[in-house]
Amino acid sequence: MNTDVPTVAQPGLAPEIAALLKRDPAGLVAAVVQQEATGEVLMVGWMDDTALHHTLTTGRSTFYSRSRGELWVKGETSGHRQWVREVRLDCDGDTVLVLVDQEGPACHTGDRSCFDARVLPATVGLPPVDETPPGRPAAAQVSR
Amino acid sequence: MNTDVPTVAQPGLAPEIAALLKRDPAGLVAAVVQQEATGEVLMVGWMDDTALHHTLTTGRSTFYSRSRGELWVKGETSGHRQWVREVRLDCDGDTVLVLVDQEGPACHTGDRSCFDARVLPATVGLPPVDETPPGRPAAAQVSR
Repeated sequence: MNTDVPTVAQPGLAPEIAALLKRDPAGLVAAVVQQEATGEVLMVGWMDDTALHHTLTTGRSTFYSRSRGELWVKGETSGHRQWVREVRLDCDGDTVLVLVDQEGPACHTGDRSCFDARVLPATVGLPPVDETPPGRPAAAQVSR
Repeated sequence: MNTDVPTVAQPGLAPEIAALLKRDPAGLVAAVVQQEATGEVLMVGWMDDTALHHTLTTGRSTFYSRSRGELWVKGETSGHRQWVREVRLDCDGDTVLVLVDQEGPACHTGDRSCFDARVLPATVGLPPVDETPPGRPAAAQVSR
C-alpha cells in the first residue's frame, strides 16, 4: 500500500456499504469520475474497499492501481487533486460515480479529461423517421 | 450470442482499433454511457471487441453481459434504446465513453440513470483555505 494514503479515523469501509458492492474477480468496482456542474467525464479508475473508504472519508478521490497493485490518491504526485462532492452507487453495485472538483488536468497526458484525445469512428444512430414520437425532431431534421 | 444483435457489413472490429484496447482478463473494456448535451452519466456496461464493433457500426449501444455471457443490444427488450452519437477511447485504452441519445429510462429499475437511487455518505473535500489560488472561492465560501 502506498504510504502517502492519508490516515483516517475509521478502520475500514462501513459493513452496510461493503454489503452493497458487487466486486469483480479482483475485488474491485469501477469508479467514473465526473466534474461537478459541467458534467464532464474526466476519467475512470478502480477501487477496492479501502480505496472507496478513503474516497468517502477523506474528501479526496483514491483509487487502486491494477498495474502497480497499490492505492493511489489522485493528485498526490501531480498536484491535480480531485475534491469529492458526491459519491453514488449504481443499481447493481459494481460501479460508483464520483462527482468532484478537479484541480487542473485529470489526465496524466495533461489533457483535462482522459477521453479528450481519441475519438473512434462511429456510425451515428437515429430512430427511424416513422417511429419518431410526437414532439421529437424527425431523424432527417437532427443536426448531426 | 444473442440472435437479436443486428447484422453488420464488417466481420469484426477494425484491427487498428483493436490494437488500441487494453482489455481486462475477461477480454472486456468498461463503457461509460453519457447522455449527449445534458452530460448525465446514465450507466456503465462492458464491451468485448464484438460489442464495441456493433456499437461503432450500428448506431446502437451494444454490451457484453458478464452474468449471462452474451451480447445485448440496449433497448432490444425494453425499447429504451441508446442512439450512438460519439465514442471516445480513454488514454490507456481500457474504457470507452459512449455519448448517446437515450430513449426513456436507462436503468432497468425505471430510473433515468443507474446512479439515481443510491447516494453514499461522503465527506465533502475542499482545498485548505491557505492554498486557495487567486480567483477561486475560498473553502469557507463554497456553498456546499
